[in-house]
Amino acid sequence: MARSVLSHPRDKERLLDELERDVMSTLTELASYGADKAGGVTRLLYTEEWLAAQRALAAKMSGCGLEAEFDEVGNLFGRLQGEDAEAPAILTGSHIDTVVQGGMYDGAYGIAAGLAAVAHLKRNFGRPKRALEVVSLCEEEGSRFPMAYWGSGSIVGKRDFEQIAGLRDARGVAFSDAMTGCGFGESAGRRRSLRSVIGAFVEAHIEQGAVLETEGACIGVVEAIAGQRRLQFEVTGEANHAGTTPMRLRRDALEGASAMMQALRREALRRGDPLVATVGRLQVQPNVPNVVPGKVSFTVDARHVDGQLLARFCEWVKRTFERMADERGLRIEGRTWFREEPVPMDAGLTRQLEEACGDLAVSARRMASGAGHDAQMFAHRCRTAMLFVPSRRGISHSPEEYTEPRELAAGALVLTELLYRIGYGEERLS
Amino acid sequence: MARSVLSHPRDKERLLDELERDVMSTLTELASYGADKAGGVTRLLYTEEWLAAQRALAAKMSGCGLEAEFDEVGNLFGRLQGEDAEAPAILTGSHIDTVVQGGMYDGAYGIAAGLAAVAHLKRNFGRPKRALEVVSLCEEEGSRFPMAYWGSGSIVGKRDFEQIAGLRDARGVAFSDAMTGCGFGESAGRRRSLRSVIGAFVEAHIEQGAVLETEGACIGVVEAIAGQRRLQFEVTGEANHAGTTPMRLRRDALEGASAMMQALRREALRRGDPLVATVGRLQVQPNVPNVVPGKVSFTVDARHVDGQLLARFCEWVKRTFERMADERGLRIEGRTWFREEPVPMDAGLTRQLEEACGDLAVSARRMASGAGHDAQMFAHRCRTAMLFVPSRRGISHSPEEYTEPRELAAGALVLTELLYRIGYGEERLS
Repeated sequence: MARSVLSHPRDKERLLDELERDVMSTLTELASYGADKAGGVTRLLYTEEWLAAQRALAAKMSGCGLEAEFDEVGNLFGRLQGEDAEAPAILTGSHIDTVVQGGMYDGAYGIAAGLAAVAHLKRNFGRPKRALEVVSLCEEEGSRFPMAYWGSGSIVGKRDFEQIAGLRDARGVAFSDAMTGCGFGESAGRRRSLRSVIGAFVEAHIEQGAVLETEGACIGVVEAIAGQRRLQFEVTGEANHAGTTPMRLRRDALEGASAMMQALRREALRRGDPLVATVGRLQVQPNVPNVVPGKVSFTVDARHVDGQLLARFCEWVKRTFERMADERGLRIEGRTWFREEPVPMDAGLTRQLEEACGDLAVSARRMASGAGHDAQMFAHRCRTAMLFVPSRRGISHSPEEYTEPRELAAGALVLTELLYRIGYGEERLS
Repeated sequence: MARSVLSHPRDKERLLDELERDVMSTLTELASYGADKAGGVTRLLYTEEWLAAQRALAAKMSGCGLEAEFDEVGNLFGRLQGEDAEAPAILTGSHIDTVVQGGMYDGAYGIAAGLAAVAHLKRNFGRPKRALEVVSLCEEEGSRFPMAYWGSGSIVGKRDFEQIAGLRDARGVAFSDAMTGCGFGESAGRRRSLRSVIGAFVEAHIEQGAVLETEGACIGVVEAIAGQRRLQFEVTGEANHAGTTPMRLRRDALEGASAMMQALRREALRRGDPLVATVGRLQVQPNVPNVVPGKVSFTVDARHVDGQLLARFCEWVKRTFERMADERGLRIEGRTWFREEPVPMDAGLTRQLEEACGDLAVSARRMASGAGHDAQMFAHRCRTAMLFVPSRRGISHSPEEYTEPRELAAGALVLTELLYRIGYGEERLS
């Protein structure tokens, strides 16, 4: 076997052209399912648009010579059989669902890049050593029902039908009714979503941040998906007349909260990347111009790839906020209402991904993913790697989401190379 | 005439007992009109409770031998005729209306103290040199209709029927219909509210702040009613993913706003009393835990008794906020949407008020009023003075509003002394 999909560096631009054309074709087609007038895409799980998009993809997979098959929850697999039918398969892909008024790249890009890569490999190198499968995961965002990672979670056994019992969307439609309405569900007679033989999962995704753009790098090599903690604080002072209460006699809950927000930012900057800490939601009571605020509640969203450092930072936050409240004669209550541990990517596969970038002369940068992805579900079960392409101005979950076609192609090129190396090479995956 | 209402210092406690009994009797009776289950009082302009309270007061005035009369807007006057029928009258009182779920002292105390004082003077000293009138002003708070100082403003010619045309309350009732429904209005045939012969106005009121309580003083001698400016700021950054946007790449509108709030407080403390500056209302967009805030709007309420210092402070605020926004890559827009100039009290009358406190051995402190009062309307037209009694914990506009009965009596004692000196003495008022 040749060392690379490129037999000579001069082939690179031609391959990029091909991949760009294929990726854009799939993305453009997918964007037509659930397109809204504002230029956005809304494709929620088990809706008409969602089903139409999955069916169009299945047709496209078949057109590329892949065996297209849905599982019982609606994940779509496009399989290129390997020489060793027993060998664990290599999966690549991402999710087909979007948020409400999302863009055309989040999720869809990983599917489009995977399909372009596997189709290219099939055309040029024929049957791989072990099966390659492009997967269009049915759901990741949790935008229709209060349940995220339904697609990848079902595959790896982290989600099951019991968990969706009783769940309804905003209109009152039951999760199970929506699912069976699309021809899926426990009794649909399709293959079980929980598959025993997955050797690896590789996900391509837009960054959803501005690090690659800012640093001028093409590819983000994801080392780990950050852990998250979400905390809720309530600061209580005393609501008072804004005219008759001298500054030094105030117990102003908003003044206290603003000092805490400043301290939070300073400390997050001091501890440095990849730690991030955000006050995203804040509410003031009574919230009228001429009354000193008596109560403020706000959230802190903190993320880090190192679970211990994240826990230590959150301890610091609680301790510091309590001290600051105390100094001001304010009361404070804090609680952690959401907690997700960091998920490291597979070290060996990540190194291979990085090497592929180097060999292809595509600029790359190791980084953490601050957002959650399907890759974090697969990582519990098989060797998993993830690559990012740049997001213009870091925008995602918005019709303004955008990545240059050439950047999309570069991501697909790296993916093609990695799939070639692990799909056609001798190395055993598990 | 004797120099003081107290012929001997040993009479002080007995007079305080009498005044306390009278003030508490009026306050308790008034609190029954509009009482709610939570222990608060809601007595809005031209409601049934309001009319019942004014009628009860009129009866009480008559019982004290005063001539009770309503004017065309519903202000109630209880007149003790003076020897010189042509001499300008001396008015004392405050407003009968409350905010929604207010307390039993705000406004009502000034009426109760005035009635107790004039009744005592009549009983003990008979007819004064010039008329003394207790006035129960119909409205000050602006809680039912978008119009404040309707009572005092009508008397001094700052309010008229044209200004209320089209005004409606929250239920859609027209101001003029509510007024005529209570038997008042332009064609009601009552005396004109605009009176030509007012020599002085003295208002007793609860402080609504905690300065007197904190400093252990009985009486606040008001030097001026503070001017107010209300500013509105809108800070715009960029809404971004809380997980994927490193701290140093953020343009976080809430971080900017919190830094501005900290700077505002530091500067207000540095410039010192009586300057106050408050951020009372603040709103965040999109206000969700996992998104870096893209937009924050907030108000600044600034007050000072010196109009020039107030203007200079507001200039500082705008300039500083603009610089801070600039440093952070944020946009900011600010505008002043409310402006009221400071109103000084009459220097001579205020000095007499202070002397009365000294002669009666009642502890007093000169201070500014950070809140607006009817006195600021009268000050445009006649010599005006104002005194405060302590508010427990500075609370007002709440069922928790409270002043010790003995403190209420001390205020009434000082008021009695001042009215005695200017009502029975030789000095001409205007």
